Amino acid sequence: MKVWEIGEAFGLENLREVQREVPTPGHGEVLLKMKAASLNFRDLLMVKGMYNPRQPLPLVPCSDGVGVVESCGEGVSSLKAGDRVIPCFAPDWSSGEPTRDKLRTTLGGPLDGTLSEYMVVPEQSVVMAPEYLSDEECATLPCAGLTAWSALVTHYGLKAGDVVLAQGTGGVSLFALQIAKAHGAEVIMTSSSDEKLERVKEMGASHGINYRDVEQWGKAVRKLKPLGVDHVIEVGGADTLEQSLRAVKFGGHISMIGVLSGTLSKVNLIPILMQNLRIQGIIVGHKEAFESMNKAFATHQIRPVISDSFGWSELPDAFALMEKGGHFGKIVISF
Amino acid sequence: MKVWEIGEAFGLENLREVQREVPTPGHGEVLLKMKAASLNFRDLLMVKGMYNPRQPLPLVPCSDGVGVVESCGEGVSSLKAGDRVIPCFAPDWSSGEPTRDKLRTTLGGPLDGTLSEYMVVPEQSVVMAPEYLSDEECATLPCAGLTAWSALVTHYGLKAGDVVLAQGTGGVSLFALQIAKAHGAEVIMTSSSDEKLERVKEMGASHGINYRDVEQWGKAVRKLKPLGVDHVIEVGGADTLEQSLRAVKFGGHISMIGVLSGTLSKVNLIPILMQNLRIQGIIVGHKEAFESMNKAFATHQIRPVISDSFGWSELPDAFALMEKGGHFGKIVISF
Amino acid sequence: MKVWEIGEAFGLENLREVQREVPTPGHGEVLLKMKAASLNFRDLLMVKGMYNPRQPLPLVPCSDGVGVVESCGEGVSSLKAGDRVIPCFAPDWSSGEPTRDKLRTTLGGPLDGTLSEYMVVPEQSVVMAPEYLSDEECATLPCAGLTAWSALVTHYGLKAGDVVLAQGTGGVSLFALQIAKAHGAEVIMTSSSDEKLERVKEMGASHGINYRDVEQWGKAVRKLKPLGVDHVIEVGGADTLEQSLRAVKFGGHISMIGVLSGTLSKVNLIPILMQNLRIQGIIVGHKEAFESMNKAFATHQIRPVISDSFGWSELPDAFALMEKGGHFGKIVISF
Amino acid sequence: MKVWEIGEAFGLENLREVQREVPTPGHGEVLLKMKAASLNFRDLLMVKGMYNPRQPLPLVPCSDGVGVVESCGEGVSSLKAGDRVIPCFAPDWSSGEPTRDKLRTTLGGPLDGTLSEYMVVPEQSVVMAPEYLSDEECATLPCAGLTAWSALVTHYGLKAGDVVLAQGTGGVSLFALQIAKAHGAEVIMTSSSDEKLERVKEMGASHGINYRDVEQWGKAVRKLKPLGVDHVIEVGGADTLEQSLRAVKFGGHISMIGVLSGTLSKVNLIPILMQNLRIQGIIVGHKEAFESMNKAFATHQIRPVISDSFGWSELPDAFALMEKGGHFGKIVISF
Repeated sequence: MKVWEIGEAFGLENLREVQREVPTPGHGEVLLKMKAASLNFRDLLMVKGMYNPRQPLPLVPCSDGVGVVESCGEGVSSLKAGDRVIPCFAPDWSSGEPTRDKLRTTLGGPLDGTLSEYMVVPEQSVVMAPEYLSDEECATLPCAGLTAWSALVTHYGLKAGDVVLAQGTGGVSLFALQIAKAHGAEVIMTSSSDEKLERVKEMGASHGINYRDVEQWGKAVRKLKPLGVDHVIEVGGADTLEQSLRAVKFGGHISMIGVLSGTLSKVNLIPILMQNLRIQGIIVGHKEAFESMNKAFATHQIRPVISDSFGWSELPDAFALMEKGGHFGKIVISF
Repeated sequence: MKVWEIGEAFGLENLREVQREVPTPGHGEVLLKMKAASLNFRDLLMVKGMYNPRQPLPLVPCSDGVGVVESCGEGVSSLKAGDRVIPCFAPDWSSGEPTRDKLRTTLGGPLDGTLSEYMVVPEQSVVMAPEYLSDEECATLPCAGLTAWSALVTHYGLKAGDVVLAQGTGGVSLFALQIAKAHGAEVIMTSSSDEKLERVKEMGASHGINYRDVEQWGKAVRKLKPLGVDHVIEVGGADTLEQSLRAVKFGGHISMIGVLSGTLSKVNLIPILMQNLRIQGIIVGHKEAFESMNKAFATHQIRPVISDSFGWSELPDAFALMEKGGHFGKIVISF
Repeated sequence: MKVWEIGEAFGLENLREVQREVPTPGHGEVLLKMKAASLNFRDLLMVKGMYNPRQPLPLVPCSDGVGVVESCGEGVSSLKAGDRVIPCFAPDWSSGEPTRDKLRTTLGGPLDGTLSEYMVVPEQSVVMAPEYLSDEECATLPCAGLTAWSALVTHYGLKAGDVVLAQGTGGVSLFALQIAKAHGAEVIMTSSSDEKLERVKEMGASHGINYRDVEQWGKAVRKLKPLGVDHVIEVGGADTLEQSLRAVKFGGHISMIGVLSGTLSKVNLIPILMQNLRIQGIIVGHKEAFESMNKAFATHQIRPVISDSFGWSELPDAFALMEKGGHFGKIVISF
Repeated sequence: MKVWEIGEAFGLENLREVQREVPTPGHGEVLLKMKAASLNFRDLLMVKGMYNPRQPLPLVPCSDGVGVVESCGEGVSSLKAGDRVIPCFAPDWSSGEPTRDKLRTTLGGPLDGTLSEYMVVPEQSVVMAPEYLSDEECATLPCAGLTAWSALVTHYGLKAGDVVLAQGTGGVSLFALQIAKAHGAEVIMTSSSDEKLERVKEMGASHGINYRDVEQWGKAVRKLKPLGVDHVIEVGGADTLEQSLRAVKFGGHISMIGVLSGTLSKVNLIPILMQNLRIQGIIVGHKEAFESMNKAFATHQIRPVISDSFGWSELPDAFALMEKGGHFGKIVISF
């Protein structure tokens, strides 16, 4: 079978297509014929050696994808050949509290990921792919979708009438928009592009703020919502946290999800304690939440937003686009 | 001023219109010129002496209504003349846990209620009336609306994709339908009338079950949802609880709200413990939840369903209709 | 190996000791040499055919026990020979929400239980036995201990200063006493024996009520705590629920755990809704909670209360004692 | 009457004792004869103009104290002369979610505080003083005690077996120790003094870490608890947060309470998101939690730790001691 791997060293230039033997599913495992994968910013960092410099190589990158059960190992009872399924980012986290152990064996590092023609996974570590979604759409759900769901639902308990602010128009933020709208919340989005702000408004955002025009966008939020927003989906990290702290209401919540703009932040701690704020780190989510999300998505026939779709051999172009930025939604690879 | 009161004895026949002096607002109180009121089943029971036989008479019945601030007592700072406001069912329950003390002083018994041309209430015990709603619509919110909200949001944390079952087409159940839909949930309704089931489907219910046709409607629910529903809005009491216990999923929730069909139920306790069920009694809700609900309603421009509207002098007809049943939504009195 | 089984028909007289072949652990499974077991009321009902009359026979009864890993099947990574472990009542419920599927495969019915010299279980379905406890003590934890923990901690969030009422002096109630005390709560116990009430006071209960003397013990509780108790551990069912509803505070919680006195109860539904009560059915609990409980028990060196200890061949005597009642704490079988 | 006030300008040198007229309680208000007060770090910052430089002067400093009802204004129903009561830090926050409005009118700035012979407060804004505590002990509860309770109980749901780390031996941390112990948790404390560490061990801490000896005390915590602690009481701010992030377990909680060592922190955001951490700002708490805390304290006869007690005229010495540091527990002023 063919796989993409990070070869002898980190770096986009070291991504290479190689042949490996098709693996055999062991007890309780299934062999998947993969159909599509999607890229997350984590995957880019992983390829470049910035996520975990001590990750042994070679490694098949990417955690997200969808496949069809080709064959089942001994003792498999919940799946059969032909089932279309989505592997979980964290195969050992079925439900309950996150622990180091449950998050130790994630796909796309340290375990081999989804950019592989075939893949063996434990039967317990997959969810059924929503029937109404295409392969490409299914491939976007495991990290970006579930992260937004965990932030807004599992860790927050979003309710109708809440106001959510999501930064940018990457995968997590667009899923956050869709999930928040499905729960009857109002959504404010930021972007550096007026065109993209138009698109999120078409998707249901009530307001768009162009942070090129308004550097202090936290203040701009306060003009729209004098008391501040209930929840911020913080994907920027170092440079945006200060504005998020301004945008959020007294007693509000910030989901710390990404660090696109840097990891070391000079945070003014005063608002956190004086305004009773909560900052909750979000590391994807568990399988039970994934299934809840899929149920909600199916109820509303929510379709993930796909920015760009690449063929198997175009993987380097896909990563190049992610690095360049400017996409709107998810970047997918169709096998 | 004119008021309706339960006179010397309980009974619909003892409802009488009388004159009282317009009260003067004391410190921290406001005088409201009432514009509309709405009836709850509790009010009917109260009039008939079945809610609290020891309630001293005369009593101005009804807890729900809306009015305009006519004048403010000393020390009032949050309201001014002309503000349109809705008195809370439990004036002493601003937020937090329910306690006997907080629920001791409810309107429409033991305190005089809303069927009064003027009314004095503490400024802290009202919420601003949503601007987009008519007087009649506002008058429906304090009990029926807030009860449904407390059941689904405060005590349950409803999320998109959940399945809610609501019984009948009374005020609470129609609000439950609207609130559940606003949160992205799916709703199943029961009724004895196909025509009403058509109407709830138009409002967004996914399924209607006519319990005349299907006495064992719990089983009918299981045909639609083999695992059962997540949440039941139980308004019937004695006779319907058995079906609710069949309809709800393993680990599911039942909000015990009303006892239309009786108060003493032969409940089979086994499913409760063996299926890890939760039964949560709901007694309206607090002011902070009322404000959250109004925010959500405004976001979605939700309009309460008014079944029948009566004039001031037609109160006996209004109660007669409530007793007869068959209405769809709230019965209101316009002053 | 020798096992106890319910033979050709239900009934205590049909319990028989037989020989079976020692099973071989499959992939991901371990073979345990069992050391001790404990009885629950469920086991008695099961033997008598009252728990599940359709349970196929023969069946090895009892869900609770402790054993030592004798050998490991292929692929076992978390356990090794010599580890002393406790099998979980519900092997498929590692954490998260309870579901029908997770509770389908419980020990002692439908699956064979712990009254077996050797036993094969999935490695994921056991917890490490607390080192400071004897085999007999460990054997008491899986149902009675975890049920009390789930009721008070998982589903309630017990805090210091809360007042808990627990009925009787069976296993669950004594564990509830110990768990409540460990969390700084105050505990009131009921019993029909003054001597037993003395013993629970020695264990830290602040009050004991003899329900022989005070049939309306709900009122007696109100004399001690005029506002009512925060939480009731309800193990009696039909006959005691009425008193529990009187004893609990406005807005309080009742954990519905057992039905010792019957399953069909004429419940007055009014207090549930008018006092905002919660009734939560409890069906043991998940492995993650089991581990949390063991951590708490170890911190406090809590020792389960063993009423009577029987040898392997004395099983019928053990069940006879359980049927007769009058024990104080758990009945165990030492192998 | 005599009061201490921050006079014409900020600064410890501008604290002055002056005479004011005894105020008269208005409607719903009570006049308290104050008996004792206690100092918080916030009060020191306030006096020095570092808490709110725009605070109008003169201001009576300090939010914490206890008094006896001297007389009641009109309409007061819940209190009578002679009642010993403790004013709440935030008189408008009876319960529920924190909001800017509820936290706008706190004692000791912007409102006059407790260093006053007499004081008028709304009857709704006080809690009954626990009978078993001295005036001085009562005076320590409103901020330091309630902050620790809110962090561990309201916002976290502490349970037996949890491991809590509290920094230093100031008021909040010692209350956290007592509250955590009352809930059956294990406590690790840090200090720069071995002698103080001995004292916290006598109070029940299981471990003490001298951060003079072990600068990287986060690592020292990991030696004791390889998986990390469940909860950190963070009072240091800028300089200690890094160590707290190391000490806390995957998925753990940090209560952000103080900023003794600075407000602008270079925080590495990575562990927050990668380890699913929660940072929760804590700004004291509401009256309902205060009453719960007092109930728990009474159940356990918990006595606040008083470091130093000063007479009325020794206030400058008291603030000087707070500034110098080195105290163990609360600094109180006895009137």
